[in-house]
Amino acid sequence: MSNKLLALSLFLPFLLLFFCGCFASTFRQQPQENECQFQRLNALEPDNTVQSEAGTIETWNPKNDELRCAGVALSRCTIQRNGLRRPFYTNAPQEIYIQQGRGIFGMIFPGCGETYEEPQESEKGQGPRPQDRHQKVEHFKEGDIIAVPTGIPFWMYNDGQTPVVAITLIDTTNLDNQLDQIPRRFYLSGNQEQEFLQYQEKEGGQGQQQEGGNVLSGFDDEFLEEALSVNKEIVRNIKGKNDDREGGIVEVKGGLKVIIPPTMRPRHGREEEEEEEEEDERRGDRRRRHPHHHHHEEEEEEEEEWSHQVRRVRRPHRHHHHRKDRNGLEETLCTMKLRHNIGESTSPDAYNPQAGRFKTLTSIDFPILGWLGLAAEHGSIYKNALFVPYYNVNANSILYVLNGSAWFQVVDCSGNAVFNGELNEGQVLTIPQNYAAAIKSLSDNFRYVAFKTNDIPQIATLAGANSEISALPLEVVAHAFNLNRDQARQLKNNNPYKFLVPPPQSQLRAVA
Amino acid sequence: MSNKLLALSLFLPFLLLFFCGCFASTFRQQPQENECQFQRLNALEPDNTVQSEAGTIETWNPKNDELRCAGVALSRCTIQRNGLRRPFYTNAPQEIYIQQGRGIFGMIFPGCGETYEEPQESEKGQGPRPQDRHQKVEHFKEGDIIAVPTGIPFWMYNDGQTPVVAITLIDTTNLDNQLDQIPRRFYLSGNQEQEFLQYQEKEGGQGQQQEGGNVLSGFDDEFLEEALSVNKEIVRNIKGKNDDREGGIVEVKGGLKVIIPPTMRPRHGREEEEEEEEEDERRGDRRRRHPHHHHHEEEEEEEEEWSHQVRRVRRPHRHHHHRKDRNGLEETLCTMKLRHNIGESTSPDAYNPQAGRFKTLTSIDFPILGWLGLAAEHGSIYKNALFVPYYNVNANSILYVLNGSAWFQVVDCSGNAVFNGELNEGQVLTIPQNYAAAIKSLSDNFRYVAFKTNDIPQIATLAGANSEISALPLEVVAHAFNLNRDQARQLKNNNPYKFLVPPPQSQLRAVA
Amino acid sequence: MSNKLLALSLFLPFLLLFFCGCFASTFRQQPQENECQFQRLNALEPDNTVQSEAGTIETWNPKNDELRCAGVALSRCTIQRNGLRRPFYTNAPQEIYIQQGRGIFGMIFPGCGETYEEPQESEKGQGPRPQDRHQKVEHFKEGDIIAVPTGIPFWMYNDGQTPVVAITLIDTTNLDNQLDQIPRRFYLSGNQEQEFLQYQEKEGGQGQQQEGGNVLSGFDDEFLEEALSVNKEIVRNIKGKNDDREGGIVEVKGGLKVIIPPTMRPRHGREEEEEEEEEDERRGDRRRRHPHHHHHEEEEEEEEEWSHQVRRVRRPHRHHHHRKDRNGLEETLCTMKLRHNIGESTSPDAYNPQAGRFKTLTSIDFPILGWLGLAAEHGSIYKNALFVPYYNVNANSILYVLNGSAWFQVVDCSGNAVFNGELNEGQVLTIPQNYAAAIKSLSDNFRYVAFKTNDIPQIATLAGANSEISALPLEVVAHAFNLNRDQARQLKNNNPYKFLVPPPQSQLRAVA
Repeated sequence: MSNKLLALSLFLPFLLLFFCGCFASTFRQQPQENECQFQRLNALEPDNTVQSEAGTIETWNPKNDELRCAGVALSRCTIQRNGLRRPFYTNAPQEIYIQQGRGIFGMIFPGCGETYEEPQESEKGQGPRPQDRHQKVEHFKEGDIIAVPTGIPFWMYNDGQTPVVAITLIDTTNLDNQLDQIPRRFYLSGNQEQEFLQYQEKEGGQGQQQEGGNVLSGFDDEFLEEALSVNKEIVRNIKGKNDDREGGIVEVKGGLKVIIPPTMRPRHGREEEEEEEEEDERRGDRRRRHPHHHHHEEEEEEEEEWSHQVRRVRRPHRHHHHRKDRNGLEETLCTMKLRHNIGESTSPDAYNPQAGRFKTLTSIDFPILGWLGLAAEHGSIYKNALFVPYYNVNANSILYVLNGSAWFQVVDCSGNAVFNGELNEGQVLTIPQNYAAAIKSLSDNFRYVAFKTNDIPQIATLAGANSEISALPLEVVAHAFNLNRDQARQLKNNNPYKFLVPPPQSQLRAVA
Repeated sequence: MSNKLLALSLFLPFLLLFFCGCFASTFRQQPQENECQFQRLNALEPDNTVQSEAGTIETWNPKNDELRCAGVALSRCTIQRNGLRRPFYTNAPQEIYIQQGRGIFGMIFPGCGETYEEPQESEKGQGPRPQDRHQKVEHFKEGDIIAVPTGIPFWMYNDGQTPVVAITLIDTTNLDNQLDQIPRRFYLSGNQEQEFLQYQEKEGGQGQQQEGGNVLSGFDDEFLEEALSVNKEIVRNIKGKNDDREGGIVEVKGGLKVIIPPTMRPRHGREEEEEEEEEDERRGDRRRRHPHHHHHEEEEEEEEEWSHQVRRVRRPHRHHHHRKDRNGLEETLCTMKLRHNIGESTSPDAYNPQAGRFKTLTSIDFPILGWLGLAAEHGSIYKNALFVPYYNVNANSILYVLNGSAWFQVVDCSGNAVFNGELNEGQVLTIPQNYAAAIKSLSDNFRYVAFKTNDIPQIATLAGANSEISALPLEVVAHAFNLNRDQARQLKNNNPYKFLVPPPQSQLRAVA
Repeated sequence: MSNKLLALSLFLPFLLLFFCGCFASTFRQQPQENECQFQRLNALEPDNTVQSEAGTIETWNPKNDELRCAGVALSRCTIQRNGLRRPFYTNAPQEIYIQQGRGIFGMIFPGCGETYEEPQESEKGQGPRPQDRHQKVEHFKEGDIIAVPTGIPFWMYNDGQTPVVAITLIDTTNLDNQLDQIPRRFYLSGNQEQEFLQYQEKEGGQGQQQEGGNVLSGFDDEFLEEALSVNKEIVRNIKGKNDDREGGIVEVKGGLKVIIPPTMRPRHGREEEEEEEEEDERRGDRRRRHPHHHHHEEEEEEEEEWSHQVRRVRRPHRHHHHRKDRNGLEETLCTMKLRHNIGESTSPDAYNPQAGRFKTLTSIDFPILGWLGLAAEHGSIYKNALFVPYYNVNANSILYVLNGSAWFQVVDCSGNAVFNGELNEGQVLTIPQNYAAAIKSLSDNFRYVAFKTNDIPQIATLAGANSEISALPLEVVAHAFNLNRDQARQLKNNNPYKFLVPPPQSQLRAVA
């Protein structure tokens, strides 16, 4: 009996996870009729830039055929040193990849506590009441994925020495977006141009009566004075009337003073990687050890993991949580992990010192992705190494080149090469679901990040060990591919690599 | 070990609930391209009335931009005393709010038992066989929400002294509807106009060969005679041929005689409220006490609650259940709660004696809503009190004014006021997902019901205690809103109210 | 305590199953505006045939109104003796019904093991290394349903004496398909016409640069040589260049040699049926007995069933599983049941020796259907017997006539008969969700298979015992149908049959 219950409690979190994964994966509107009928795919670049005081926001045209088929919108935000991206929320889930730089960010979850409390500044000394309290603030660094749910305000700030470069995917066809597929930014403050609205046809002159660019600027002054209990001057600023177009990214002269625990500051290089790996190890270990011996302390861990899972499914749902009234489940949502590193500092899923590496971040390691229905893949491919022909089984892939260039081939169901060319730094290629693709690196360290429209995306390879061809019976391969048995055996077995094939010369060198 | 299992069994129902909630919330088709691009929103009123013998059905035009964006259809049914709304099913889930009156209703769930058995009438006395048996019948009263799943026949009857007024939302874009987004009523009997089909363009003269208005009227007489084993006269009546347009609501002269347990008759006023509150208390208590002490009788309750959860996910799936053959799980669906009070007799979620009150009914308290992916909010706001600027995080809100009038402001992502005006009794305003809104009551007791397209809807406030602005770090507020630290502190902290702000004079009075 | 936990572990698999069922059922895009507005439904036949070396593929036009409303595509594949349908994957889930014949099939699940190992052939004798290894291969026979998930390669081979005839439904509006609604076949090999692409308007001449018809033919030769480590000749064959249009079904001269365990060969007739029935019995028994007595061996079974459920939700998600590294959960996906018999050899859900029989296969008995969101029904109706008027509560039904002919009536929500005519062998009728339908057999053994777009489809009857009318209170029937009490009682009770009504003369004979 106890064994079974053990198994039950052990499997349950995983099981639920997979449920969530399995379902969340399909929470997307299909493209319109014929919207994925491509003669050819194009490498896409941003076609518009919105300048701000301390940075720029570049956007890809969301009406491009490729992005419409994939049902997403893309932007690249560059934030100068001490730049603050003003808080905004969006009508669809977002996945942000930090290509460069470091800083802090925050999200506001309605109903979660303002748990960061700033002590009195000495200059005032008004007693024991905290100077300020606010919701959690977190650090980010290069290689991080940040997950932002629909309708949750988000802000970020560059506290490093180099500009921050962040690539954002908005999953506009996600069913969490109950509006139409136009990506909308709702800024809480300021008076700025919306980066995506320019692509909309302005039927009848939308935006004429505009007073400012934020969600508060449309309210009457009297409403705001009363609702906020503040004077006219403050209301004027809130509505963005005094804002001389600083835009979405403002400079914080002297730097932003926000309290954040010192231990959370990201350590660079090896250390953090080890820490993350250790954590993974521990978790993996536990799974493996569990069925055989089961000590009390492991149970404790299990329970912790259990509540871990809860985080992603529990959203605050009542209008008014008193802080003391919250139960453990809500606590877990409010402490949900919002950031996960996927860059080169992490341990990859596949690695070949002569060919490259890649890592996929799914809802299994980063549960909030189950809510978003998204995942991400980060890869490096060395010069002349190949990523074997493969396809995405259950997702579209929106691939952005971080560094270097590579030759891509993408083939449709009719056997046509819909893309056969070079992809360079800063360009985006959409690889639609089930289309076959292959990559050959042209640079010493070609690097990319691929956003995937499924929280547990899956790829299938068409060449190499464990590929679909090698898993077919020999005789089926022979007759289906019109080969003799010996040729079929070569086709099944010749390439010993699973994903990344080193260049021929390095293979020789390795043997020699 | 046992502690963990305790926790497991304790959390599981909730966990599953939230799963269902989390997913069901997104089971809706997105609007068509640009369908939510509003220059301005309109206060909508019904534009068509279908007269029946004992009542009227008024409809809002489902092709209005606002209702198309929200993906819903609306109607208002008024049933005179002794009026019976004939049974019909609909190709999408429905949420019905009882604005006025009382009566009884029934739904037919295929596979559930005919568990209400009417004893012999004395006049006949044919032995111990019951006179009639049928599925469950329930009472409703003012302030109730009734939830009707897709394809489930529903009927209702006015057994009170005043007309029954019921507002119905049909969630046509719910994915449970596998047809297109036209709301369709399938009447089981009668010969009446379909209230929504008139809005369809009659391409090629749809409806010309129409014999009667119900799903049986299209079958050949011979089919029906054989399938029902009845004579031609009965078939003629079934097909609605003898029905001289009594319409969807017929008068039952002398009143409808249907058995229903006397204890279920709703008691008025304080009593029932207490009962419902007590029930909530007991449940809340149990959750809190559980981790600390756990007696045998509480286990019993837990198990009961467990099966409670099952109700909503288990639908009858086989074609032929013998009554004695049913297992416990099916029993639970068949006894699922279909009605829940949300009106003023219930205890509100937020309450301020100088400002008003409101309550949200979600799938957590009313599990069937998880199946429908809908929720509802009921509110009262006193004269000159404010509902602070807020937005719906994960739902569209379709707000119907029950009583009085109020000034509404709704702001889009560009900062434009797309609505700035009065909303009066009987009018409907759609507040799209993520659009900011604020309300100022113009009447002593402005009352509304808002249907929400998510079974666990969430709102975020933009002013007041625990608002999004107050949860931002002080320095972020200062720099994002272009304020000095002192102004920023005022903006964060000045308004001590969370949702409903009393009018200034009453605040003064309260202080004085 | 232990009782509760028992209950918990007992219910959990079912509970989760129903969750999955409940949700999967709605994972489908809605039809476009007005796409289900039918003046009349048509009996559809295939309108195109693609000839192959060893068979044909016939297709129904997926642009037919009926199939567009249902959101599916249909084809019929006939495979001659020793014919091999080349491996292909599809951008949407598929349900295949084997109308005739027997053979073997395989699917390739990325990440699952190549667990079938062919020993050395004597002629070579190169030591203990197996001659070939490949993923699981399975038998199929007449009456089987085979479920193929999105993006999973599938092949089949006729190893019997008669042609294999297979009807395939592709659920193109399933949200697992993230492309548009065009059904796409991605062949791994050969150079053949895609059966569905012909229906697409060739805007700008799609397919002009086509080299061959498979997903590998679009890659450069050098890419393939390197990725596969094979020579130019093999690459030429892979790309289909040497393939002189043998098409999608090739003849395997001398027969395909694939190892498969002898015990898996399907036994004919009574034997297998008994086996399947026994299995069902055992499972049913266990459920019933469990609460009362619970022996250790039953626990074992329970655990087995538990992992059974896991199968369908767990998909391989990592790029590189070493065979020894896999945990138990993945094992279960990789051993998931892909085939289930629904034909006449199985025990039906409803049976009347004078009227007929039918059986519905849902995700409860065939869990993979929960992933696909599909189900199937198989029925036989004897001459002049009736299937009473009914409707599909939560699914569209796509009905294909296997044998004989029957008279169908289908009625829409306005009471119009949108179909009233004969349906013959090989024809397809779409019965949209909630439309009422009735069937009268015109042949001694009219047989059909109906594909349903919900993994737990539900029907509601409008006549007979336990019908919706019989479940209404007598007085509601009387007033709603305009009948007196005695007529209402006849309408409720006269027909004692639930689904299938024997012809009048046989009823008399039975009585006499």
